[in-house]
Amino acid sequence: MKKLINDPAAVVTEALVGVEAAHPELRVDHANKMIIRGDSPQPGKVGVVSGGGSGHEPMHGGFVGPGMLDAACCGEVFTSPVPDQIVAATHAVNGGAGVLHIVKNYTGDVLNFDMAAEITAADGVDVIQVVVNDDVAVQDSTWTAGRRGVGTTVLLEKVAGAAAEERRTLQDVADVARQVIANGRSMGIALTSCTVPVHGRPTFELGDGEMEFGVGIHGEPGRRRLPIAPAREIAAMLTEPVLDDLPFSGGDQVIAFVNGLGASPLLELYLMYGEVAGILASRGIRVARNLVGSYMTSLDMAGCSLTLLRVDDDLLRLWDAPVKTPSLRWGI
Amino acid sequence: MKKLINDPAAVVTEALVGVEAAHPELRVDHANKMIIRGDSPQPGKVGVVSGGGSGHEPMHGGFVGPGMLDAACCGEVFTSPVPDQIVAATHAVNGGAGVLHIVKNYTGDVLNFDMAAEITAADGVDVIQVVVNDDVAVQDSTWTAGRRGVGTTVLLEKVAGAAAEERRTLQDVADVARQVIANGRSMGIALTSCTVPVHGRPTFELGDGEMEFGVGIHGEPGRRRLPIAPAREIAAMLTEPVLDDLPFSGGDQVIAFVNGLGASPLLELYLMYGEVAGILASRGIRVARNLVGSYMTSLDMAGCSLTLLRVDDDLLRLWDAPVKTPSLRWGI
Repeated sequence: MKKLINDPAAVVTEALVGVEAAHPELRVDHANKMIIRGDSPQPGKVGVVSGGGSGHEPMHGGFVGPGMLDAACCGEVFTSPVPDQIVAATHAVNGGAGVLHIVKNYTGDVLNFDMAAEITAADGVDVIQVVVNDDVAVQDSTWTAGRRGVGTTVLLEKVAGAAAEERRTLQDVADVARQVIANGRSMGIALTSCTVPVHGRPTFELGDGEMEFGVGIHGEPGRRRLPIAPAREIAAMLTEPVLDDLPFSGGDQVIAFVNGLGASPLLELYLMYGEVAGILASRGIRVARNLVGSYMTSLDMAGCSLTLLRVDDDLLRLWDAPVKTPSLRWGI
Repeated sequence: MKKLINDPAAVVTEALVGVEAAHPELRVDHANKMIIRGDSPQPGKVGVVSGGGSGHEPMHGGFVGPGMLDAACCGEVFTSPVPDQIVAATHAVNGGAGVLHIVKNYTGDVLNFDMAAEITAADGVDVIQVVVNDDVAVQDSTWTAGRRGVGTTVLLEKVAGAAAEERRTLQDVADVARQVIANGRSMGIALTSCTVPVHGRPTFELGDGEMEFGVGIHGEPGRRRLPIAPAREIAAMLTEPVLDDLPFSGGDQVIAFVNGLGASPLLELYLMYGEVAGILASRGIRVARNLVGSYMTSLDMAGCSLTLLRVDDDLLRLWDAPVKTPSLRWGI
């Protein structure tokens, strides 16, 4: 295992020391392993909380700040945050207008966010939970009943965060989040496995000439194992099932998101984006905005995912709204 | 070789198709393999041009836009751009106030930028060239007489771009660039080799338990090969030679830049930043600003580099000035 770490069991704890040093505008609660907007709570604003296992950085901690998340709960690597963390985050960002929980559909995450919502509701905090399940690859999976939550989460956190920043009500922010979930679809592919620090060896074995089509962001099996194909074919293999699933139709306006899974260079991600953009143009899909980069990773996995989000003018305006986080920033 | 590519010889050409599709605010000249601000030339503004071999993305193409570069010339992977590209870029961004060439100290780059400067000077364009040589690892290296140019280049492009945006003269922008070069130092470490697409195999061999200390961004040999160490020790091994070289002193104010070389997850880079910040604090060095992420890469190499830039209030103000590029953006 070749990693820039000290104790494999302390990776998250120690990375949070670095986050705190690098981002004085954020607050790091080391006991609860959470990253919070420094100016929380914002009176009258819906709090937006997400979280999940670590190892997917910059998601979620890199998306905390004005216009996006109020807090992110960091589980151990590939391990759900515990209810106590989520309860603490919910209270920390509650400005009296309620709190939205953005949860990726993994059994542990859903369970722990559920428990936290019950506890904070008993404390008198309005909480609405939305569950992202955008991965068209497989119906059920390791750790998942139903589809997995992947790349749409990044777009959702931006858009829901902007809606909350506009001082929309909790119901309205949740409606925006549900609209994103209803209109976002994703698919990923791995060229290599990732290696979890405490395991010290690759999560799965993949031959020199093989790729895992439909991989999950923890290395969960996908649809099938295939010989490595040229980028052009991989782009088609990712784009077509995504388009067919919603389905997206000619004339639709989308945000197109080519996401690196960790170890794939930006040069390759742009090449992939060029291929995807060509396919979308040929289908009459209009790309209103795009995002290319490694925003939701799987540690050191090589590969990428494609997310398409069908947007109307309101979602597009929320996407364009100012945002100031460590990893997504514009207009501020 | 596991890469998201089609033809290994067409990687740069095809990635530029993606850059053009993703960034309508930029102009891509496919014949000259260059990325240009869409609103070039800016009358009365010094043009700022950089470039070099591809494979280091987002450097340089990801730094084109208001407040940073006017154009980036993209060589083939790890291969200098040719003089014709640089000449075309220089003319494309010349708004009548002259053009600054930012060159990393590699023999091919310096030679080709020199030739381009001669040609454009004969055409009546004022050009000043600055050469970045901030890598303290080795004195001479493969492809380099003198020290290599590495991470300081990213900081220089931001700061010189801001000076040009303020409509300072070519001499003044060049002076700012020289100040950055005089006050920036870097050192890097590789945990794995990179793989150049047209070669199809790792550039160098590194054992399972080894790291290359002082590595260059093309996989050039460093100071020595060592057993892999904990992040805490690696941070000290990178920071101390950098501090000793300028030397930096207690009370100095710096921009601290922990850069990923391509395949190292952000989680590890933040952990490294925490270690570096601790060392700097213990030495009385004040970190005024920081940058953590993969901004100057070596394809799919795992590892990182540290850059420290001593700044005065003017450099700091230029660093903080608005910038709008694909990979570095704030205030706009």
